[in-house]
Amino acid sequence: MKKIKCIVIGASGYTGAELLRLLVLHPHVEIVDLVAESNAGKEITELYPSFYAANLPALKKLDEVSFEGIDVAFCCLPHATSQEVIAKLPRNLRVIDLSADFRLSDTALYEKWYGPHQAKHLQSEAAYGLTELNRDKIEMARIIACPGCYPTSALLPLIPLAEAGAIDKSNIFIDSKSGITGAGRSVKVNLLMSEANEGVGAYALNGHRHAAEIIENLGVNVSFVPHLIPMNRGIISTIYVKLNGTVEAARKVLVDKYADEEFVKVLPEGVAPSTHQVRGTNYCFMNIFAGQLEGYATIVSVIDNLCKGSSGQAIQNMNLAFGLDEKIALQQTALFP
Amino acid sequence: MKKIKCIVIGASGYTGAELLRLLVLHPHVEIVDLVAESNAGKEITELYPSFYAANLPALKKLDEVSFEGIDVAFCCLPHATSQEVIAKLPRNLRVIDLSADFRLSDTALYEKWYGPHQAKHLQSEAAYGLTELNRDKIEMARIIACPGCYPTSALLPLIPLAEAGAIDKSNIFIDSKSGITGAGRSVKVNLLMSEANEGVGAYALNGHRHAAEIIENLGVNVSFVPHLIPMNRGIISTIYVKLNGTVEAARKVLVDKYADEEFVKVLPEGVAPSTHQVRGTNYCFMNIFAGQLEGYATIVSVIDNLCKGSSGQAIQNMNLAFGLDEKIALQQTALFP
Amino acid sequence: MKKIKCIVIGASGYTGAELLRLLVLHPHVEIVDLVAESNAGKEITELYPSFYAANLPALKKLDEVSFEGIDVAFCCLPHATSQEVIAKLPRNLRVIDLSADFRLSDTALYEKWYGPHQAKHLQSEAAYGLTELNRDKIEMARIIACPGCYPTSALLPLIPLAEAGAIDKSNIFIDSKSGITGAGRSVKVNLLMSEANEGVGAYALNGHRHAAEIIENLGVNVSFVPHLIPMNRGIISTIYVKLNGTVEAARKVLVDKYADEEFVKVLPEGVAPSTHQVRGTNYCFMNIFAGQLEGYATIVSVIDNLCKGSSGQAIQNMNLAFGLDEKIALQQTALFP
Amino acid sequence: MKKIKCIVIGASGYTGAELLRLLVLHPHVEIVDLVAESNAGKEITELYPSFYAANLPALKKLDEVSFEGIDVAFCCLPHATSQEVIAKLPRNLRVIDLSADFRLSDTALYEKWYGPHQAKHLQSEAAYGLTELNRDKIEMARIIACPGCYPTSALLPLIPLAEAGAIDKSNIFIDSKSGITGAGRSVKVNLLMSEANEGVGAYALNGHRHAAEIIENLGVNVSFVPHLIPMNRGIISTIYVKLNGTVEAARKVLVDKYADEEFVKVLPEGVAPSTHQVRGTNYCFMNIFAGQLEGYATIVSVIDNLCKGSSGQAIQNMNLAFGLDEKIALQQTALFP
Repeated sequence: MKKIKCIVIGASGYTGAELLRLLVLHPHVEIVDLVAESNAGKEITELYPSFYAANLPALKKLDEVSFEGIDVAFCCLPHATSQEVIAKLPRNLRVIDLSADFRLSDTALYEKWYGPHQAKHLQSEAAYGLTELNRDKIEMARIIACPGCYPTSALLPLIPLAEAGAIDKSNIFIDSKSGITGAGRSVKVNLLMSEANEGVGAYALNGHRHAAEIIENLGVNVSFVPHLIPMNRGIISTIYVKLNGTVEAARKVLVDKYADEEFVKVLPEGVAPSTHQVRGTNYCFMNIFAGQLEGYATIVSVIDNLCKGSSGQAIQNMNLAFGLDEKIALQQTALFP
Repeated sequence: MKKIKCIVIGASGYTGAELLRLLVLHPHVEIVDLVAESNAGKEITELYPSFYAANLPALKKLDEVSFEGIDVAFCCLPHATSQEVIAKLPRNLRVIDLSADFRLSDTALYEKWYGPHQAKHLQSEAAYGLTELNRDKIEMARIIACPGCYPTSALLPLIPLAEAGAIDKSNIFIDSKSGITGAGRSVKVNLLMSEANEGVGAYALNGHRHAAEIIENLGVNVSFVPHLIPMNRGIISTIYVKLNGTVEAARKVLVDKYADEEFVKVLPEGVAPSTHQVRGTNYCFMNIFAGQLEGYATIVSVIDNLCKGSSGQAIQNMNLAFGLDEKIALQQTALFP
Repeated sequence: MKKIKCIVIGASGYTGAELLRLLVLHPHVEIVDLVAESNAGKEITELYPSFYAANLPALKKLDEVSFEGIDVAFCCLPHATSQEVIAKLPRNLRVIDLSADFRLSDTALYEKWYGPHQAKHLQSEAAYGLTELNRDKIEMARIIACPGCYPTSALLPLIPLAEAGAIDKSNIFIDSKSGITGAGRSVKVNLLMSEANEGVGAYALNGHRHAAEIIENLGVNVSFVPHLIPMNRGIISTIYVKLNGTVEAARKVLVDKYADEEFVKVLPEGVAPSTHQVRGTNYCFMNIFAGQLEGYATIVSVIDNLCKGSSGQAIQNMNLAFGLDEKIALQQTALFP
Repeated sequence: MKKIKCIVIGASGYTGAELLRLLVLHPHVEIVDLVAESNAGKEITELYPSFYAANLPALKKLDEVSFEGIDVAFCCLPHATSQEVIAKLPRNLRVIDLSADFRLSDTALYEKWYGPHQAKHLQSEAAYGLTELNRDKIEMARIIACPGCYPTSALLPLIPLAEAGAIDKSNIFIDSKSGITGAGRSVKVNLLMSEANEGVGAYALNGHRHAAEIIENLGVNVSFVPHLIPMNRGIISTIYVKLNGTVEAARKVLVDKYADEEFVKVLPEGVAPSTHQVRGTNYCFMNIFAGQLEGYATIVSVIDNLCKGSSGQAIQNMNLAFGLDEKIALQQTALFP
């Protein structure tokens, strides 16, 4: 079988590194070039010594790349930068974007949360890459906009429940807790181990960008409060919803929806998901419980923010877009303990 | 000044050890005896080598203790055991109980959540030890029932708001996250570092005992979901409430209520509390923010579960009960970083 | 290709779980039975919910297992138990033992450190499973005794250096630091997260069992001091040795020895190994540096204790013993960050 | 009693913050001014919200400080900056310097390790502030140069043993492991929680600055290899030494030397020190064990790097220099668990 030739743009950040961790074991992918502007000329092992046993090309600048024969570009860049770079790529490439730049179909909403958008004309070519819920569009799209980590954890349970009318959409409280890698490799005081370790805080209490993505996909406003947890990886979203029917009915919606999915598992009744169960994996584990207030339910959904919440889902989307089995290179069991 | 003579019953658990950490620096307290049935005969340093520089008596059985001249007994025992022991103590002692046994004035409610109560006849002698909100009763009571850690974090903001009519009590969601010491020194697989570290999960989704305490004090049912966080100490409660008025008005209720309190601080507008800020201390830091759903607010409240959430508040109650300045031995700044 | 049929005895401990994590992705292995005496009847997901997406058989008692057609048994049992079980297994099975029971060819030495040995008669059928340094014997042996985690980290650099005469064997100081999973799933107070987290201590200062294994393989006494580090996985051994020649010559010994090995990498000159680089992998990264005392060198060697230090090396040995490519199912890159 | 008036220069770093944590509870100290050039104008709570309950002055520039009536300046600055600032301070002030600038009496040695020294003329006014071993000079000196954290942990056991002739000084291996706060509040990628957490590495394998301090004080070269441990606070130094006599004799040297010291405890025979035991405290716990090589011993010494290893010892020195009881404000028990 002919290999899919890919380049990874933005290989020096965490989503880039996570993508490489998974791609090096993909039997049908050839990693042709790694792009990292400010680190061009270095080996990836200088940034990530964990790759000493892999056999990866040195980092390049984008303008040193020959696109001859390349099938797909993964863009692991910060938002705003990503749109500029994607606008310059050859149009015959499939683009899998891990940034926020093409996640919102409403570019005005984008600009409200993220600032000016330099490539609005490309938005119509993009599909929202929440794999299990948008396959038809992902298969066809030139640009696949992989969802944010928080939205992935929240939307996988909420969209089917909302579509089935099992919950009241007007009244959703999403309390999310994320490991520290969600902030990327940005060198900020509050991300130092001395500061982040051994404590937990809420942040973005006046609104977090990922709320926009949840709101657009649900079609209603929601309450979304993220917290920073002293661990590397993992997101747990605890979601408080008002039921339209019974919790058993709501649970059945989820069980039925995901019965044939590899990467979304509704745990057995009563079993609580924990991020330990999905560390380093592309799985979303979820469950729903009777709420403690009459008529409410509590949903718990866990993912690895860097994997299903970013680079793993990106590969799942690539597999889908190129007609491969979606599961290839993604079926690792959690690293536990 | 004559010293207060105390004994600590249940000195080998975490609340016992935390109590000792603070009491050894209390200028007006003499620690006469340490009781720990199964470890009797040992030095406390065999269990907690951190006490090598303190000068503490060896552990005894309760029946080896002479109560002659003792002013106060701290009971740091598990619930159920605590009630049995307290029922046997001389009646001239003040008792400060850190267990759940006398926290609920409704002993039927107690029995529903905790099982049979062997000392119901003593409930009328007990005051709920949420210091800032119950001073009158604490001062007089023979038994002071120190609140649970989760309820302390939730009730300090919620009671004043509810009493002022600033929030709708029928619709409260408390999402709490606790460090691992909340589970005590019990040797369970899920508390092993290998299992608890690097992940987070919700638990007690079908109801946690501490909910009873919150419900009794607010007079309504609430939603309370606790989570276990990979850190030693700290609780953050993120609370979603429906406002009756503006968030500014609600904030003013809290600011006014706690203006003269040492141990409860409402942070400046917009500043997010984090458990890092109160690690190892008797402080509760809180704040309230406009919710992301119209008409709602988000409250964030943080404490150290072992200190303000247990042993620190116990000492604060002792200071109050014995006519001392409440602040004595309790004004440490957080151990940060 | 016909699959290798295996059973895993002692599937409920950490080395069992780690073995399963890797084996489920092995294309040439079929996991026929999981044995766990005290948990027999349960699903593995009740112990390790991370396996919800795998498709594993329920746990059995050993006497419920049919050995018909089984090619290999992995024994993930505690020492002493392992020898008893192995003595009862059908003799046509290959046995890969992860315990200490057959690691020491000198059974008297074994009994000195571990107590009575009930299956000394089988010792002659066992090979020490330090793959890179003992392939000839491993290929042939009926029983493969996988090395301890500490010895793996220390012997991989020390044996080649000693054999080449590059170091003075009489004067070796091994200062090892291990993550908490090294202690297994034993429920002890000092392994609780509250106790192990946020601190580090030396232990076994009067001698650790793994020293025996190092001593037997080097043929001299050594100083070996282990430390418990607040992390789940990883061992770093910092080794102080007296050189017979130059550090460059010593380094060349290691570089040459491991030039063609997949799983042992001598890092580029001056680059310091860290356990982050091998988390979750079967790799040993090492390096050697000029010591700060004239004539000495400092060796640094890192592995994942559960993987190369136990279950990963077990699979590497199985691959070798069954004539497969040693690398199959073992080339994951570290989970970093 | 008249209060000692102090200023803290460099209040925004970790040693500054730790100093304030302890000083706010010192009954005989008044904190008059906090200096932090780049953060001047801010409240300390903007940098360290943990101080919301303290009552500290806002941050100033140094040239805004009036030195009228000030008794002592604590300098919590980086090396090189410290010497420049100290050279400009009024000469009637006592100066307690937490940097490396005046630790080495041999300024040539300083310049070899740290670069040019701008205030060599002041070196003769400085005493090395290892309190227990240099009281006579500390009491008299205008400048007290507080030792580095690693040297404090190593020299407290080694100096008495060397002076007593109990060990062979020519052959000392110091393997030290430090929490992450030892690197200060510097914003570097390797100190991010995502990178430092869940792994351990050796660093400075070609020589660490603190070696100079150990070497000058012992008068011989030593091997010193530091490691970075995934925890906030604490240093453990495991030290391998050749004995001149028995280990019992060596142990007696330490026991006798520190019999009357509050802050240095030789633990009971056979008890292993751990950094958990001294977290947040000014104590050094140590012990010595028979080595596993004939004629050698293993010393284990633990401190909190920010406290006894820096700011705590600074206050101990201030107490000494001003004729107070050394123990004031420093007798906290470790925050454990």
